Amino acid sequence: MKFAEKPYKSLVADAAATRVHIVDQTLLPFAVEHRALANWQEVAEAIVNMRVRGAPLIGVTAAFGVALAMHEDATDASLAKCLRALEATRPTAVNLAWALARMASLLQPADPAERADLSWAEAERIRQDDVDINRRIGQHALALISSLYAKHQRPINILTHCNAGRMACVDWGTATAPLYLAQQGGIPIHVWVEETRPRNQGLITRWELADAGINCTYLADNAGGHLMQNGDVDLVFVGVDRVARNGDVANKIGTYLKALAAHDCSVPFYAFAPRSSIDVGLNIGVGVIPIESRSGDEVRLIRGIHRDGTIEEVRLLMPDAAVTNPGFDVTPARLITGLVTEDGIFAPAALAAALG
Amino acid sequence: MKFAEKPYKSLVADAAATRVHIVDQTLLPFAVEHRALANWQEVAEAIVNMRVRGAPLIGVTAAFGVALAMHEDATDASLAKCLRALEATRPTAVNLAWALARMASLLQPADPAERADLSWAEAERIRQDDVDINRRIGQHALALISSLYAKHQRPINILTHCNAGRMACVDWGTATAPLYLAQQGGIPIHVWVEETRPRNQGLITRWELADAGINCTYLADNAGGHLMQNGDVDLVFVGVDRVARNGDVANKIGTYLKALAAHDCSVPFYAFAPRSSIDVGLNIGVGVIPIESRSGDEVRLIRGIHRDGTIEEVRLLMPDAAVTNPGFDVTPARLITGLVTEDGIFAPAALAAALG
Repeated sequence: MKFAEKPYKSLVADAAATRVHIVDQTLLPFAVEHRALANWQEVAEAIVNMRVRGAPLIGVTAAFGVALAMHEDATDASLAKCLRALEATRPTAVNLAWALARMASLLQPADPAERADLSWAEAERIRQDDVDINRRIGQHALALISSLYAKHQRPINILTHCNAGRMACVDWGTATAPLYLAQQGGIPIHVWVEETRPRNQGLITRWELADAGINCTYLADNAGGHLMQNGDVDLVFVGVDRVARNGDVANKIGTYLKALAAHDCSVPFYAFAPRSSIDVGLNIGVGVIPIESRSGDEVRLIRGIHRDGTIEEVRLLMPDAAVTNPGFDVTPARLITGLVTEDGIFAPAALAAALG
Repeated sequence: MKFAEKPYKSLVADAAATRVHIVDQTLLPFAVEHRALANWQEVAEAIVNMRVRGAPLIGVTAAFGVALAMHEDATDASLAKCLRALEATRPTAVNLAWALARMASLLQPADPAERADLSWAEAERIRQDDVDINRRIGQHALALISSLYAKHQRPINILTHCNAGRMACVDWGTATAPLYLAQQGGIPIHVWVEETRPRNQGLITRWELADAGINCTYLADNAGGHLMQNGDVDLVFVGVDRVARNGDVANKIGTYLKALAAHDCSVPFYAFAPRSSIDVGLNIGVGVIPIESRSGDEVRLIRGIHRDGTIEEVRLLMPDAAVTNPGFDVTPARLITGLVTEDGIFAPAALAAALG
């Protein structure tokens, strides 16, 4: 796909220099600023402050955090310390824990002298797997778009929330992968991109899609229900941060509201879940998946381009104004039409059986 | 109530000078700037650009627009022209049409020589009626809060969307009137105030409530569903822009999503509807009430306080980025627990019978 040649890949690992290069996503789409991460502490800071974000990319970046730690100090104590610290960076997305567990199970039994090389190679494998997984996810979901197009013979309208796009992953994105494949296959689509307050990750989704020449329209989160009620949405595609065995899905705050509207308006609602985002140890999600509570300043302040061209923050609320800022919500399985994984699309009720 | 003495009443009519003084609400809560409207054209501009906003206040302001026109030129042609122009300012709230119809039915049969005095007195009556109506609305809804408090013996959590407060009215507000009465009656409450993108009228609600010493917490619109799912909301109180006979309610965009969540989580959902907001000529609301489509720049640009203390706008999206910006949505009657009017609280299904 055309993004592959672009300088702004979400993450590039430089084995020669033992550095991981990321795009600082807090500045997107206003500026594309690269940042080199040289140790696990810098990786942890980048995850906490959402310089890298999106469940799959967080997992990949954390894996490289372990690899950087092993290059510095490959002792058991160092390994345990970086695993603990990286796991604590964000509580909701399970890909983080999944990637760290994968690194731990490889490294803990290994000779410390081999951990540096082993860990870098494994992180690189996780990175490359993400690209393959998302392409497979996209192929499964493409069928949903194609069959609607065959039926209606007009552009298919897809609504998405937050950014489950290539900047949330290594490439393709999860929920956006079928959009690129539809475009490549000449199936006309139009994407409704929700702003996704308070962090406005919709701006990143719009930037990705517009750059690829995909027709899209931006809207405030509040408008999504009205569009569905009005018959303007054919499919809802969202990412996930954690899926329970019963099919309950944690995703960016506001997802639950869109699932309710989709259900009320009979619009099919699909959550895009690589298997690394399925928490096989968790039977149900609602009321159980830990929901990250983030700083109120994410709501009180907002960043944009000032008329003089600089990137500026303006204040909507004074620091003493009480704010609550949950980062995620949980959508009950009963509102979800299907979970799109790299191994196919499953009805939520069929997920546990499929997992074995 | 304490606001009565404050300099920032939403609208003050000066009969001696034939001027209407408003607070320019586009600058709230960052600055309280008064503006004198001297003719109906200035009134129309203030309504279109949301310098005055909120269904009840729009009706009152439009009535004064007619009065200003009659002071300038009391002919039939002038009356017809200002009625037509003012009615075209905003399509969704029916209070506008209601106030103009009330002015028309008084003025059309009257001697042009008497129209100036008659119209000013009638606009003033509409203004004063609004205060009484909202106090009565507040008294009916207070019972909802009191009975929950009697049961739970802890602060009652009320979630509100947009601003159905005193700046949307002449005083008290509709959805906020019971909050002031609860405070006066010593019933502990806590209010969840939703931001209400894209215009952020939640900032006005928070400013009103915090000024009155009412405990409140601000949140992104996306978070409201999660709070309800988590058991943190006892009641949802919202305003209305138009109610159909079957109880369907048009209100600020995003209201429908909160009604869905309230229904899903068994949280009582009340819409605050002075009778002037009930469109007795309309049998159903969904798909029928005209939904205003506003400028995409309301989404592309956002205003706040710059670190140098000035009020500044920053740009989130370039002018060529496609945006859709519907101002309202329609909540089906089946999701509404009750309509709070000045004559009591009605189940939506009982509304038509109550209207006669």
